[in-house]
Amino acid sequence: MSGLSSLFNPRSVVLVGATDRSTWSKMAYDNLRLLGFAGKVHLVSRSGGQAHGQQTFTSVAEIGEPVDVALLMVPIAAMNDALRDLGAAGVKSAVVLAGGFAETGAEGRALQDAMVATARSLGIRLLGPNCLGFINFNTGGVCWTGSMRTPPLKGGISIVSQSGAVATVMKHFAHQHGIGLNVVAATGNEAALGLAEVVDYLVDDPQTRVITVFAESVRDTALLRAAAARALHAGKPIVVLKVGRSEITVQAAQSHTGSLVGDDGVFDGVCRQFGLLRVRSIEELMFTAALLEKTGVLQGEGVAVLSASGGMGELAADYAHLEGVALPRLAPQTLDGLAAALPPMATPANPLDLTGAVVNKPELFLECMQVLEQDPAISVLVCVFDVPTDLNNDWAPFAVGSLQAIGRFKPQGRVRFLAISNTVKYVSDRSRAEIAAAGLPYLACGLDVGMKALRHAQRWSAQQRELGAQATDSATAGGVTPPAAWPSSEREAMAYLAGAGVAVVPQVLAETEAAAVAAAGAMGGGPVVLKIASPDIAHKTEVGGVLLNLQGEAAVAEGFRRIMASARAAQPRARLEGVVVSPMRRGGVELFVGVRRDAQWGHVLALGLGGVWIEALKDVSLRVLPVSPDEVRRMVGELRGASLLGGFRGAAPVDLDGLARLVARIGDAALALGDGLDTLEVNPLLAEGDRIEALDALATHRSPGGTEPHP
Amino acid sequence: MSGLSSLFNPRSVVLVGATDRSTWSKMAYDNLRLLGFAGKVHLVSRSGGQAHGQQTFTSVAEIGEPVDVALLMVPIAAMNDALRDLGAAGVKSAVVLAGGFAETGAEGRALQDAMVATARSLGIRLLGPNCLGFINFNTGGVCWTGSMRTPPLKGGISIVSQSGAVATVMKHFAHQHGIGLNVVAATGNEAALGLAEVVDYLVDDPQTRVITVFAESVRDTALLRAAAARALHAGKPIVVLKVGRSEITVQAAQSHTGSLVGDDGVFDGVCRQFGLLRVRSIEELMFTAALLEKTGVLQGEGVAVLSASGGMGELAADYAHLEGVALPRLAPQTLDGLAAALPPMATPANPLDLTGAVVNKPELFLECMQVLEQDPAISVLVCVFDVPTDLNNDWAPFAVGSLQAIGRFKPQGRVRFLAISNTVKYVSDRSRAEIAAAGLPYLACGLDVGMKALRHAQRWSAQQRELGAQATDSATAGGVTPPAAWPSSEREAMAYLAGAGVAVVPQVLAETEAAAVAAAGAMGGGPVVLKIASPDIAHKTEVGGVLLNLQGEAAVAEGFRRIMASARAAQPRARLEGVVVSPMRRGGVELFVGVRRDAQWGHVLALGLGGVWIEALKDVSLRVLPVSPDEVRRMVGELRGASLLGGFRGAAPVDLDGLARLVARIGDAALALGDGLDTLEVNPLLAEGDRIEALDALATHRSPGGTEPHP
Repeated sequence: MSGLSSLFNPRSVVLVGATDRSTWSKMAYDNLRLLGFAGKVHLVSRSGGQAHGQQTFTSVAEIGEPVDVALLMVPIAAMNDALRDLGAAGVKSAVVLAGGFAETGAEGRALQDAMVATARSLGIRLLGPNCLGFINFNTGGVCWTGSMRTPPLKGGISIVSQSGAVATVMKHFAHQHGIGLNVVAATGNEAALGLAEVVDYLVDDPQTRVITVFAESVRDTALLRAAAARALHAGKPIVVLKVGRSEITVQAAQSHTGSLVGDDGVFDGVCRQFGLLRVRSIEELMFTAALLEKTGVLQGEGVAVLSASGGMGELAADYAHLEGVALPRLAPQTLDGLAAALPPMATPANPLDLTGAVVNKPELFLECMQVLEQDPAISVLVCVFDVPTDLNNDWAPFAVGSLQAIGRFKPQGRVRFLAISNTVKYVSDRSRAEIAAAGLPYLACGLDVGMKALRHAQRWSAQQRELGAQATDSATAGGVTPPAAWPSSEREAMAYLAGAGVAVVPQVLAETEAAAVAAAGAMGGGPVVLKIASPDIAHKTEVGGVLLNLQGEAAVAEGFRRIMASARAAQPRARLEGVVVSPMRRGGVELFVGVRRDAQWGHVLALGLGGVWIEALKDVSLRVLPVSPDEVRRMVGELRGASLLGGFRGAAPVDLDGLARLVARIGDAALALGDGLDTLEVNPLLAEGDRIEALDALATHRSPGGTEPHP
Repeated sequence: MSGLSSLFNPRSVVLVGATDRSTWSKMAYDNLRLLGFAGKVHLVSRSGGQAHGQQTFTSVAEIGEPVDVALLMVPIAAMNDALRDLGAAGVKSAVVLAGGFAETGAEGRALQDAMVATARSLGIRLLGPNCLGFINFNTGGVCWTGSMRTPPLKGGISIVSQSGAVATVMKHFAHQHGIGLNVVAATGNEAALGLAEVVDYLVDDPQTRVITVFAESVRDTALLRAAAARALHAGKPIVVLKVGRSEITVQAAQSHTGSLVGDDGVFDGVCRQFGLLRVRSIEELMFTAALLEKTGVLQGEGVAVLSASGGMGELAADYAHLEGVALPRLAPQTLDGLAAALPPMATPANPLDLTGAVVNKPELFLECMQVLEQDPAISVLVCVFDVPTDLNNDWAPFAVGSLQAIGRFKPQGRVRFLAISNTVKYVSDRSRAEIAAAGLPYLACGLDVGMKALRHAQRWSAQQRELGAQATDSATAGGVTPPAAWPSSEREAMAYLAGAGVAVVPQVLAETEAAAVAAAGAMGGGPVVLKIASPDIAHKTEVGGVLLNLQGEAAVAEGFRRIMASARAAQPRARLEGVVVSPMRRGGVELFVGVRRDAQWGHVLALGLGGVWIEALKDVSLRVLPVSPDEVRRMVGELRGASLLGGFRGAAPVDLDGLARLVARIGDAALALGDGLDTLEVNPLLAEGDRIEALDALATHRSPGGTEPHP
């Protein structure tokens, strides 16, 4: 075993600072017993004697045999000695419980840095500090200074959380709903090991089928991207709950674990791009993971719902509608099959209401599911059913008969089957036993959260299927030659883009009035736009440096004179190169393409529609560069204004493939400008049918040596 | 007792069709025992003998003493005889269990109509058919043919549901989370009694503090409106879960209880208008009701959150942000007070992280809440805390100590206090006992649903406070004189609106070229718009009947000739009255005001921004007429594009009060056109600063004698 595997699968552990007087120590010791850890458990107490009914050593070195992991429950002042003791004993992994480090400010950060340096010099891997530890439910290896629900439920879902308390809430929630776990890891301040490393490890961990993450901040963004890409290819879902949607949260995280939460919109884009499923609540997080563990990759989109209640079926249809889950119409032969199985008062449909008749004949569940399974439009079958709990009157004959009838359904083909409770419900010990006995794929999440989880599974499955269908759409920044000099004016930026293969509106620099007239004439004689050309004028409109819609020689000539005069009057010292002549474009849809440098994720591309869409609605899609044309197509699909590109008000539909190629190319051109690029904006990008052109562009460089994030 | 009170508060009941062979009969009988009904329970079986260990009568009449309510568990074929028996015995209320009526089609509807006619002739009030009945938790009076959780939990929340199964899910959910109930009524097919009647009754029921509704359809919309208005004035919240968001749901409801679900957007508008709180899930429904039962009217908007976990505090802030719940910054003296109470490693802030220190000192909860309570910006204090359940290791010392410390906090002033669980949790018998002993205002809804419920409570409380502040903003259709003749052309519609006090752009009908030139000159000589005036031409643009932006005498004269010629060429038989001359308006924000007749709710006014806002984003706000200016202000606030009215891109901000008065006036003018009005559209309504004018309008009449809904 090497790396994180020896941390999360210890054969032996030592609790350093073990004492009966500490709640932490007692919980850590009890947890090893509760989980039935088969390896050796050693205790170290500097004062010696017994703790938790077991003899202690006064140092780890004294144990005299190899130990895989140490849980350090010592104060900050004793940390250095404790680490040196581990080093002497050859212990390679340590969990640090103590707080008071980077989360408290500069002084604490210095202490933390010193501790990490010591550990590194001794070859010790650190989890924490300010950290509850980790749990391995399947092996029983646990260094966890928090409480444990019993009996522990083993399963294939792993939890990585930067907050130990949230990890506790997550695992208790899982227990309440009968969801089994594998590894739980709290990473705390992440002085050394961060969530990206743990996620990266779990991608390869065979016991982990689904990874759940609670994150405040992502430190090693490159590793998380790589791990996410590997997980997507491995068919292992990663479900993420990340805080940072509000300014208040950003401040709270700073004082909680000293972390920077980053730009929430960028993180959203990263999730979509790399197949991370982002959820909004702990409930959605755990149930989405539980659903994916049961279904794996879905083979299609269509969902059928059957229940014993018309009202619940209607609610299911509403929940599905709100989430965008399709409940397809059933095929004629399905309707015939259902009509044969159902009493006359029932109406075959999707959602299917079995009516009160099912109370006396629970086999209706099974019979109808066997019919629905055959429908070609259906990929997921949801049977709405509450598994009873421990309450009085809960195990009524109807409930027992239904559980057995539903449990007998075992789909043979491509259809995935789930039994989902009406509302969120707890799962008692007895419920769990009956669910296991019936082999029921049960989610006690209720239909509202269930539809959300199903939608996440559909999105992830679609990405899986696309991966299988086409492995060639690689996003690379290939083929763009960096410019010899920085494109510092709009004209140079446009020329650079044109050279990179981005379609731009024709532009001719006219140094004289005659040249301007000639250029306009060469453009076909239609209306033109004139703009002042000067490396010293940033805001052309403000100096009267832009004239639109000039038609005819006289108008162009007069326009040239006016622009030059206005610019000269406004900025007498500016170098005036002349006027840029372009054909006037009308109609079409204006888009905005912007690239900026994100402090955490690097260069990010934003795509949106212009005007109110971006200004009033903030309707943009974001991705980390590079992006492939396929990825740009997905970005377009995320825009609320996307319908405008499809031929709004009788306009010609925009060539979306052409648009996607062009936007991806802008991204490549931005990357070729190198790390010094601060922003590159193409605004507007005008799209009308298959004519898609940049009308204006500007690139800005970061201040020399500057590494500050973009404001 | 009279009316529904004698139905829902029976002193005696009779179960008709009682037999040991029926699950329904057994459940109905058991429920009376489980709820401890103190009144008389009679059984009727036509075959006589014993049932459920009690002697039966062979008819109700045979009982020989007054009975308040009969639960009819007889088949359709026996219904007529059963009703006549009730009539003979003087029973005034009956619950009908049987299905097979209107929900199955025309034949069933005829049977249902006949049953209702019989009941009516006998003076019997009917609940159902196709109905599980009702429960009165507080009196124990129950006619309910479904299962019951024990012990029954009494409280102030009543449930009205058109689906018996959904009512069951709702009450089981309430029980799982320790929420006590009062009346539960399933209305089924609503052959006679509908949900509006039951809601109307519960508004006056002193035991009911909050009303929850599950609805497919609202039949008596006028009564529900009136009941909602009464409830708002009485300070009794109504929380509504209504299906019908998708086309699939609409079809499902038709076959479930034979009901029409109506236009979902209109229902949304009705809820906002009349103070109904519309939720999206059963979870949100029951927890919003539970929260409101605990808090009543909130005295302000600011919320403070404190928890033992930084991560959960951050999640709370994110949930609050997503719902629009404000977590204000704390006042300096609050921060000082918290700093004095907290250990040095904690950071005083909102949300407040008590840190791990609270594990050893649960009193921190109480001490910090006493400080937070004093902050002037805080109206609601949320303490994040999980009350333990029945699991092993759940009642840890920390949990017990915290429960006691938190329970000791009793706010004295305007602040409302809630303890909310981290995630949704169940509440065990032991939890309930400890909660009651501590007097803890606990909601086991989790922070996600908790913030949603809190936002609903804030909206409702704001309406309550507004009601108190200003009782004079009555919405009436006063002062508009109906026109002598229907305004059948655009010109007539504009003239009618102008006469009703709606500002419209100046319009002059010019019958000759010279008159057109003179009219344009009289408008100041600026650019004008010409439109063909003809009672026979509906689509002016298509016949070349509109010219924009004509400047100067020559252009107007030529425009007149062109329009007349185009119209004549396109429609030789049309009567041409001339051309309407108006000043050309530029800039400003285009709005859309439309009135149409909704089949269920009557005339509905839609307000939106023009262009993509209404066409691509469907960004409209709807209300039933009449609307007051204040109501229009709220409509404007609901528009996603509202920021455009506030001075977008340097434009002058629109006079929102003037806009509101004008839109309300359009509504009054629409109502004055009477029930024959099909649609009235003002499109666009142009708003720029304080100049707000209708530029175009059209009114359409319903086809003679037609009552069909608008497509």
